[in-house]
Amino acid sequence: MFVTFEGIEGSGKSTQIKILKTALEKIHFDVEITREPGWGAVGELIRKIILDIPDLDLDPFSEISLFCADRAQHVKELIKPMLNKGKIVLCDRYFDSTLAYQGYGRSLDIELVKKMATASTLGLIPNVTILLDISVNTALSRIVERPGRNKIDDESFDFHSRVKNAYLGIAKDSPRVHIINGEDEEAEVHDKIKRCLSTNFSIFSRL
Amino acid sequence: MFVTFEGIEGSGKSTQIKILKTALEKIHFDVEITREPGWGAVGELIRKIILDIPDLDLDPFSEISLFCADRAQHVKELIKPMLNKGKIVLCDRYFDSTLAYQGYGRSLDIELVKKMATASTLGLIPNVTILLDISVNTALSRIVERPGRNKIDDESFDFHSRVKNAYLGIAKDSPRVHIINGEDEEAEVHDKIKRCLSTNFSIFSRL
Repeated sequence: MFVTFEGIEGSGKSTQIKILKTALEKIHFDVEITREPGWGAVGELIRKIILDIPDLDLDPFSEISLFCADRAQHVKELIKPMLNKGKIVLCDRYFDSTLAYQGYGRSLDIELVKKMATASTLGLIPNVTILLDISVNTALSRIVERPGRNKIDDESFDFHSRVKNAYLGIAKDSPRVHIINGEDEEAEVHDKIKRCLSTNFSIFSRL
Repeated sequence: MFVTFEGIEGSGKSTQIKILKTALEKIHFDVEITREPGWGAVGELIRKIILDIPDLDLDPFSEISLFCADRAQHVKELIKPMLNKGKIVLCDRYFDSTLAYQGYGRSLDIELVKKMATASTLGLIPNVTILLDISVNTALSRIVERPGRNKIDDESFDFHSRVKNAYLGIAKDSPRVHIINGEDEEAEVHDKIKRCLSTNFSIFSRL
């Protein structure tokens, strides 16, 4: 099973992934957590370019290309091998992020973005995607408090709104994507994620 | 004027670019030389990934994405500003390389490769492209002798043949691309390039 988590900054993805991992391990699943961008030797360099070169005015097409380069290598070197070993892989961001952030956030050619995002998965589509939905105001207030803010955290209210709406559009078009309200308390969000997974997938019925 | 040089490894592009720069400067043109991949802070990291990480089995879609990321940033940060200053820019490899190497060499989806390569130019198509054509045997014998061989140099005879044929196909479809026989002596190749430019572009008539 390949489960991806999506949502705007501050939506609680990494927290929920960690709690879900623990819950899955309690019922004896073998779970691997990973994230985008920035896996492996290639990803580290790419993450550096996207988030960390100071004063870099990165061209939007350059940005999407880097996210896609990172993903293809991540799928090939880590995600596919882990799935082949029978592990459950929980991934913080995947190709829906590319469509939401680069396609709608940056206003690039949507058709080309869709094609590139799809190609970058090397054919590996998630079994299920959890979209943690929060308001942009909540997102911005949570981002302010966290250490290690990056360039994407610093984008405008409008940018984050476009991304949020893009995600809701993606969820509407794709039964794979389940929307969970991320405004609630951590434990409540976790319960909803568990219910969503146990209801929809027999493999998760014991959650 | 934006002039690009293409050809398989060992075709003499970098040598011919240097000689042409000197010839153009003699007739008082302001000339900038550049190359792909690997310009600037972004390009340096990308070049490292593509050519230098040892034992890295780079996914072909990851590779093309990196070349495109490098190009978009190169165009935005260097080539367009130089052209806007009235300089002549001579570039060693450009978007035809992506089609020839990643599209035909790596056998990726040609339509997607064309779209990505075109998008990566940010709309900047060369005024003229010099394709230095040599046989694959000549290429391989020249590569063997040079220091600092990289991963693309080390590809098979078949790979270099596919790239050579792809270039000839591109030239056939595009009047922008002029084929020059790169098997001849340096000075003779240079003379042919000068004749090609002076015949086709009034700005170069004094060459």
